[in-house]
Amino acid sequence: MNSELSMSDLAPLETAHVILRLEHDPQGLTLHWDDGRRSRLHALWLRDNCACPQCRHPQALERTFMFIDHSTPAIASAQLDQGGVLQVRFLSGDEAHVSRFSTGWLRAHGCALDALPERRGGRVLWDAGLGQHLPTIDYADYIATGEGLRDWIEAVQRHGIVLLRGVPTEPGQLLEVTRRVGPVRTSNFGDTYDVVSMPNPNASAYTSLGLELHTDLANWHSPPDIQLLFCLKSSVTGGDSVFADGFRVAEDLRLADPEAFELLSTQELEFRFHDASCDIRASAPTIAVGRDGQLQRIRFNNWLRSPMVMAESLVGPMYAALEKYWRMLRDPLYGLHLRLEPGCLIAYDNSRVLHGRTAFDPRSGERHLRGCYLTLDDLQSRLRLLERAPLKA
Amino acid sequence: MNSELSMSDLAPLETAHVILRLEHDPQGLTLHWDDGRRSRLHALWLRDNCACPQCRHPQALERTFMFIDHSTPAIASAQLDQGGVLQVRFLSGDEAHVSRFSTGWLRAHGCALDALPERRGGRVLWDAGLGQHLPTIDYADYIATGEGLRDWIEAVQRHGIVLLRGVPTEPGQLLEVTRRVGPVRTSNFGDTYDVVSMPNPNASAYTSLGLELHTDLANWHSPPDIQLLFCLKSSVTGGDSVFADGFRVAEDLRLADPEAFELLSTQELEFRFHDASCDIRASAPTIAVGRDGQLQRIRFNNWLRSPMVMAESLVGPMYAALEKYWRMLRDPLYGLHLRLEPGCLIAYDNSRVLHGRTAFDPRSGERHLRGCYLTLDDLQSRLRLLERAPLKA
Repeated sequence: MNSELSMSDLAPLETAHVILRLEHDPQGLTLHWDDGRRSRLHALWLRDNCACPQCRHPQALERTFMFIDHSTPAIASAQLDQGGVLQVRFLSGDEAHVSRFSTGWLRAHGCALDALPERRGGRVLWDAGLGQHLPTIDYADYIATGEGLRDWIEAVQRHGIVLLRGVPTEPGQLLEVTRRVGPVRTSNFGDTYDVVSMPNPNASAYTSLGLELHTDLANWHSPPDIQLLFCLKSSVTGGDSVFADGFRVAEDLRLADPEAFELLSTQELEFRFHDASCDIRASAPTIAVGRDGQLQRIRFNNWLRSPMVMAESLVGPMYAALEKYWRMLRDPLYGLHLRLEPGCLIAYDNSRVLHGRTAFDPRSGERHLRGCYLTLDDLQSRLRLLERAPLKA
Repeated sequence: MNSELSMSDLAPLETAHVILRLEHDPQGLTLHWDDGRRSRLHALWLRDNCACPQCRHPQALERTFMFIDHSTPAIASAQLDQGGVLQVRFLSGDEAHVSRFSTGWLRAHGCALDALPERRGGRVLWDAGLGQHLPTIDYADYIATGEGLRDWIEAVQRHGIVLLRGVPTEPGQLLEVTRRVGPVRTSNFGDTYDVVSMPNPNASAYTSLGLELHTDLANWHSPPDIQLLFCLKSSVTGGDSVFADGFRVAEDLRLADPEAFELLSTQELEFRFHDASCDIRASAPTIAVGRDGQLQRIRFNNWLRSPMVMAESLVGPMYAALEKYWRMLRDPLYGLHLRLEPGCLIAYDNSRVLHGRTAFDPRSGERHLRGCYLTLDDLQSRLRLLERAPLKA
């Protein structure tokens, strides 16, 4: 791999697009692409991202150039060579420096915001209708092929839920499936936990009660991102699984009742779980929204919700807003009902998809799910490695 | 323990304060405390927090009462008994319900915002002067006594940094120290990692280069909260450790240059680490600030900073703002310099305290630090368990 053209990136950075022409001045340059896009690149931005061995550590690939130790760079010249490599000559005080940028890198990293949508995977919001075409992957494909693994990860990113079927019904298989993506995210419930009805439960999950739709571990500052539930036994009466896309419901609430949405997205609620071995508390809004208005995380868990701390005048409206969201979650329009059979492993994005179950009769048979969590960073990293073509095989 | 008075809490909820009188109407009640505080409590808030065995699972301690399945409650009567227990009788449609609240619980949980400061631990911002009185704990106290452990945790919460001295210089001791608080937070560098100069480093830390002040793993959506670095060998020339309170510097920046602070706290930067085994990326502001204006997390890492993605007109101001913060970080006014000797274990809040080192000569001797991470939730939980007096012994 040509280290200059790879721009210190282990993945190939290719693009079908061509730079038709460029203009430069001391403060920056403008690229004119064949699809009409114009990328204006600031001189310091370009200089700061130089990938030559003086500016990035050649093994660590990390930036060693520290812009604050140099005076402001000015572009002295800029030209494209026939291979599509942009060569820029900078002057900065008495220093001169030449940097080279590949077309693929410039297309992928252009600082303009219009490059962002190309980088972000599409998210598809869903309702109960997804039950007809739930993303489903065969275990054999998942465990043995890069394509199966990639399809599984992309389903988690796109729909926030994916079913794996045909998993051998041995308890250890959950970790086999998980390890293909990354290390288990541990919690106060351990690396893995067995969802069965227990005589002295420390959580409602470990009873035979029906469970309203909820997100797990809302009481952590960073709740787990991805949850996996592996069905080992399922002979009881009742105990069906229910899922809903909390983002779909939140977007519908945003349209139907902007004031309720505003309250749920700005006012924090408090959550807590405590037993003999831990006491874990965090506060956060029910619907976390980024500065760009994009939904980031749903926290909804009636069991773990602690007393609200807010001005008394907000308490009534907050309960009303919570009720509105909760009633929408209960609407059959949104809920996806599923009977997990032994060998089924359902995975879903706990920051977005709520899960629950119907009550079951523990004397009617057995019900045993084994669960664990994964971290989004590990999931995304695995997908990027799969896309790093030269290392894919 | 009296389950009514414990309010489903495993910790004792006591208060020296007394409720002098109360007023109620159907929508809520007002408590008048002996120190002048008035707590106005909404009827639904009270009803929702009932801790009786019908409303909370008696073993799981979790709320099973679901307010949306009941009509709006009205307070029919409210009185304090001689033991300081508030008894409230609710009517809700045709239903009646009696709830009991202990004075200690009411003082600790009153929904009014004025109760908040009592619950939040004080945070002390510091500068280089802390070097004269760096919080320091003896390993023997930490490992064998609840007081030592509590002092250590409180130092992490208060100053964001604490030195443990006298740790036996065996590599396994790092995990012994960590386990006393909670499970290790793993990362792409493993559960623990050895900070030594390596021939083919995948990160700048594994060279003998000087390291500017930075926070670790800025490229993760949730960077690790607490970092521990245990010194096993320290005979090289150079390689001193440097720390700075990023919150202190950020608060000073907020006063000195509000525009720079605004940019750094609203515009996200992108971060990335990638090597043969991972490619982990996240974007976040340099200075994360809550809706209440409180500082939440610093991300500052020049090695891992990826090309900025923002309107070109913001690029220049962003570099200027970054430079401002960076120059302040370099100011000797803020930097705490420390020579870690074998047996020293320094722990700091990676969401707040930046760390770095001076360059060292790898031929002059040995330098070996072993590091790992802990999660804030586990740290806070451990402290709450220590404060849960009946279980303390």
